[in-house]
Amino acid sequence: MTTDLQDYSHKRYNILTGEWVLVSPHRAKRPWQGQNETVSNEVRPAHDASCYLCAGNTRINGEENPNYEDVFVFTNDFAALQTNSKNFSVNDGLLIAQSEQGICKVICFSPDHSKSLADMDAKDIEKVVFAWQKEYKELAENELINYVQIFENKGAVMGCSNPHPHGQIWSQTTLPNEVDKKDQQQLTYYNKNKSSLLGDYLKQELTKQERIIFENDAFVVLIPFWAIWPFETMIAPKAQQNSILDLEGKDSFLFAEAISVITKAYDKLFNTSFPYSSGIHQAPTNRKNNNHWHWHMIFYPPLLRSASVKKFMVGYEMFGSPQRDITPEIAANMLKELI
Amino acid sequence: MTTDLQDYSHKRYNILTGEWVLVSPHRAKRPWQGQNETVSNEVRPAHDASCYLCAGNTRINGEENPNYEDVFVFTNDFAALQTNSKNFSVNDGLLIAQSEQGICKVICFSPDHSKSLADMDAKDIEKVVFAWQKEYKELAENELINYVQIFENKGAVMGCSNPHPHGQIWSQTTLPNEVDKKDQQQLTYYNKNKSSLLGDYLKQELTKQERIIFENDAFVVLIPFWAIWPFETMIAPKAQQNSILDLEGKDSFLFAEAISVITKAYDKLFNTSFPYSSGIHQAPTNRKNNNHWHWHMIFYPPLLRSASVKKFMVGYEMFGSPQRDITPEIAANMLKELI
Ligand SMILES: O=P(O)(O)O[C@H]1O[C@H](CO)[C@@H](O)[C@H](O)[C@H]1O
Ligand SMILES: O=P(O)(O)O[C@H]1O[C@H](CO)[C@@H](O)[C@H](O)[C@H]1O
Repeated sequence: MTTDLQDYSHKRYNILTGEWVLVSPHRAKRPWQGQNETVSNEVRPAHDASCYLCAGNTRINGEENPNYEDVFVFTNDFAALQTNSKNFSVNDGLLIAQSEQGICKVICFSPDHSKSLADMDAKDIEKVVFAWQKEYKELAENELINYVQIFENKGAVMGCSNPHPHGQIWSQTTLPNEVDKKDQQQLTYYNKNKSSLLGDYLKQELTKQERIIFENDAFVVLIPFWAIWPFETMIAPKAQQNSILDLEGKDSFLFAEAISVITKAYDKLFNTSFPYSSGIHQAPTNRKNNNHWHWHMIFYPPLLRSASVKKFMVGYEMFGSPQRDITPEIAANMLKELI
Repeated sequence: MTTDLQDYSHKRYNILTGEWVLVSPHRAKRPWQGQNETVSNEVRPAHDASCYLCAGNTRINGEENPNYEDVFVFTNDFAALQTNSKNFSVNDGLLIAQSEQGICKVICFSPDHSKSLADMDAKDIEKVVFAWQKEYKELAENELINYVQIFENKGAVMGCSNPHPHGQIWSQTTLPNEVDKKDQQQLTYYNKNKSSLLGDYLKQELTKQERIIFENDAFVVLIPFWAIWPFETMIAPKAQQNSILDLEGKDSFLFAEAISVITKAYDKLFNTSFPYSSGIHQAPTNRKNNNHWHWHMIFYPPLLRSASVKKFMVGYEMFGSPQRDITPEIAANMLKELI
């Protein structure tokens, strides 16, 4: 790989979205005089009587959580999307709107309030994978649902309002922007090459070994060539699979292992419970032909230099393009050493 | 306007980018248990000896600021884009990159360290407008530059590393993602209708008066129908203009007045120095025909409920689409009452 990428300003193309990221490698030397995040090193109890996600506790709407032993899923008490919401549309000149229906769920990863995925072993994470599969399958069977977004916001800095290990599942009638972009880019490539865009990319990465952080028999963990966030990573199955329902045999465990490895490395990087938003992009559910889809999981962590200094995606990033200083190759090397 | 928009989940179409925002009006009632921002009510001196933007002080690179009296512009000491950067490209299978050159500048709005645009009067803000025009014109004459992004990050929560009133100008060879989207949407509309997309939209808004916050002879301040951030606003010239170089007669003062009005209203909303990123989207500079461009300034403020509770664009927003709870119409009413 040309060393120019480590030395000079350039933009990199995201093959999955069709958009660009600006990379300014020399700027990593800039001194930091801005906001520092509060780092919470609070040790949490295994059960917190005031937590609305802990087993046996009562939620805001009065419902009582069961005494669950591994994973617990319920419908979000403040769902952004609902099934009984009115169907309507606005087509008034340049004012265009359309009602959107859906189902939002919360998934508790463990009854242990003190844990995060990074503290759980792969066998327990596999139970979360099974729950994701079950939810994706059930939601897919609902005629109203055409897309299922599985995600997790971890850490107060990522807007997470409760430290209990949990994620969310928002499912809806139409494809959200980011999924729509990836749907189109993958389809165009598949129609032309009769192979998976992401699969072909992974083959290139596996040959180069410049951005690969970890691999097992079925999965690769890497920093994408076009990563936006300083320590953004992707977990993807080596063989093309349209959705997590295609996991076979040992795959679900190997996926859980990949999640375990990268979340543990993250925690070691700045010696803190590493915040991030993670999400799984996969095939829409109401369509017969998803041959072009290659599902993958992405982690967007905000931290840049330490547990208290994050990267701000503001100003230029909001009005222009995402911008990063430290290169994906350097970030990959840093994470690789922690595994 | 249908009241359904105030009651039920829906998505709204952004005519300028071609993307959607999810609106969940009923969710504004959700209790907040997440992170609170630190609110700095520190009173700043008019001159701070340790500030690298104050008049007469020495910057990190050893250069001394002049004793400027209104606006002062200099080239960013840690520029993300440079003119002497190497020209190269990478076209290695699915790894695609291209060098990017440019010029980054910092613009101090006032020598008074204690002020923000909200504290300055329109006459002084007009001097900032004149400086923006001068920079846009000079950069436009540079063959290397095809786009000039003027923006401001205000407040520590928006990654601003120095409270001295200042903005930035990043100019570069190619169009960043957001500008490229707006370029295409405006061009398609212009080719079809031979009129300005934004101009036609403003006419509709001026008739409806549901999202208009303020207007004077030349400008409208409104919350766009498709606004993402809770109190996002746009300032746009009523008559189509391609760039800020088209400001005529009293226009520059009227633009300054619009900036003054909205920033003052923002400060009143939560009784705090209101953080935001603002930016001007306008015509590219290396192209003869920009007939489809209608320039505008946008404010993206992060605050949601109070000076210390912001909206987090995380999880679903990063992997799916932007999402908002409070509707643009309600936010517009709140701001209108503060003017
Ligand atoms: O250039 P500054 O003020 O040092 O940096 C700030 O603005 C830049 C442009 O929006 C961002 O890339 C940085 O993340 C932010 O901290
Ligand atoms: O649903 P929560 O955890 O209350 O809310 C969090 O996640 C949502 C989905 O990413 C975001 O829209 C909110 O801004 C964030 O605070």
